[in-house]
Amino acid sequence: MSAAASNSSKMMTSPGDMFTLENPVFCCYLFWSTVLVVKMLLMSLLTAVQRFRYKIFPNQEDLFFKNLEVQFDDPHVERVRRAHRNDMENILPYFIMSLIYISTNPNADVACILFRVASVARIIHTLVYAVYPVPQPSRILAFATMLLITFYMAAVVALRTLSFI
Amino acid sequence: MSAAASNSSKMMTSPGDMFTLENPVFCCYLFWSTVLVVKMLLMSLLTAVQRFRYKIFPNQEDLFFKNLEVQFDDPHVERVRRAHRNDMENILPYFIMSLIYISTNPNADVACILFRVASVARIIHTLVYAVYPVPQPSRILAFATMLLITFYMAAVVALRTLSFI
Amino acid sequence: MSAAASNSSKMMTSPGDMFTLENPVFCCYLFWSTVLVVKMLLMSLLTAVQRFRYKIFPNQEDLFFKNLEVQFDDPHVERVRRAHRNDMENILPYFIMSLIYISTNPNADVACILFRVASVARIIHTLVYAVYPVPQPSRILAFATMLLITFYMAAVVALRTLSFI
Repeated sequence: MSAAASNSSKMMTSPGDMFTLENPVFCCYLFWSTVLVVKMLLMSLLTAVQRFRYKIFPNQEDLFFKNLEVQFDDPHVERVRRAHRNDMENILPYFIMSLIYISTNPNADVACILFRVASVARIIHTLVYAVYPVPQPSRILAFATMLLITFYMAAVVALRTLSFI
Repeated sequence: MSAAASNSSKMMTSPGDMFTLENPVFCCYLFWSTVLVVKMLLMSLLTAVQRFRYKIFPNQEDLFFKNLEVQFDDPHVERVRRAHRNDMENILPYFIMSLIYISTNPNADVACILFRVASVARIIHTLVYAVYPVPQPSRILAFATMLLITFYMAAVVALRTLSFI
Repeated sequence: MSAAASNSSKMMTSPGDMFTLENPVFCCYLFWSTVLVVKMLLMSLLTAVQRFRYKIFPNQEDLFFKNLEVQFDDPHVERVRRAHRNDMENILPYFIMSLIYISTNPNADVACILFRVASVARIIHTLVYAVYPVPQPSRILAFATMLLITFYMAAVVALRTLSFI
């Protein structure tokens, strides 16, 4: 039993146990990535809300009201779609980057703060872009926050694995 | 040897072993995620098929036939591209959400059924959107199926990791 | 201690240790995925460079210069955006596919070569598409390289997990 315990404690510090609920960094990643997944999926619903509010539909089979034609360039719909596309461009690579960053066994405090700041920044990005447009540079700052955090994680991982080029 | 065996059986129930081929939930994820990856990549090829069929190319260097100009608003090509974009908006976040959902050690039957239903729903989504357009609400139902499954997984993960906010 | 060592060496060959820095295949994945993440994020900055160079902005709040109106169809900006979208369509599914491919414990040499070739191919794709347009089939070949590698990985994973359908 003591052998099992010592074995298990050894396991905790080995790099093989990063992706478990016993690792607080991974748990923090789980929580905030889930928040961002939900935020991204809500963009689809926000697009749908705008489509029904302004009666702008892109497919023949979506014309739920009489005397409508397909339309593509409504500014209210397109703004939400641009915000959604920006999410895909930035949050999806961040999901992978931050996940593999965990495998380098980073300092727990640093990693958790990065996850929190990056996630909150993207929520602000959505608010100032798609929900209630606000003058620049609010959106640029929110955008740059996650971008720089992702670059930092990339530098950590790349330096650590440079010999496998 | 008996110690090794007991150790190995202990490992199976620890949360550290979720992402191995010994975990049937992970294997089910592997199979159906692979199906969805292939499905998504086929959208690129379907777009190419439409581009050659209707001779619609977006770049100067793609004009493989004489007397063509770049064109962007062909309805046959754009329909496939909208379906493809919808895949990116929904399936890519689902990949991450369902992967991290596995780390919470969910009930194997529930998890596998969710993976299967979500994947089949997205195949149907593609068929009724891009291959053979069908009246609504067929596409909305296929879309909502994966969306609700992803939200369910998000709820499970978020509740489990709420203390790491 | 010798027991611990033998246990640890046993662990290395078990499928549960794929996602650690002790696995050279995973390290190679880490390095090249990081390169691709950075490459993708640079597309955002390249788009921004084009927007400022040609003064093409899609939102009212982005009009940093006087007497400008929002504009959407500038060919220089749209070319970079198409290249960026193509990255999302291909690299993001590849991230997931190659990550889960590692769990099947592939031959290290084969896996590392695939990661390197796929990544370099996409860098070439960006160069010949968005940076300095080059006649076809250069872009098609770069595109097809990662596509075929992803299909190969999909075949390996699907055959290995076919019983979990």
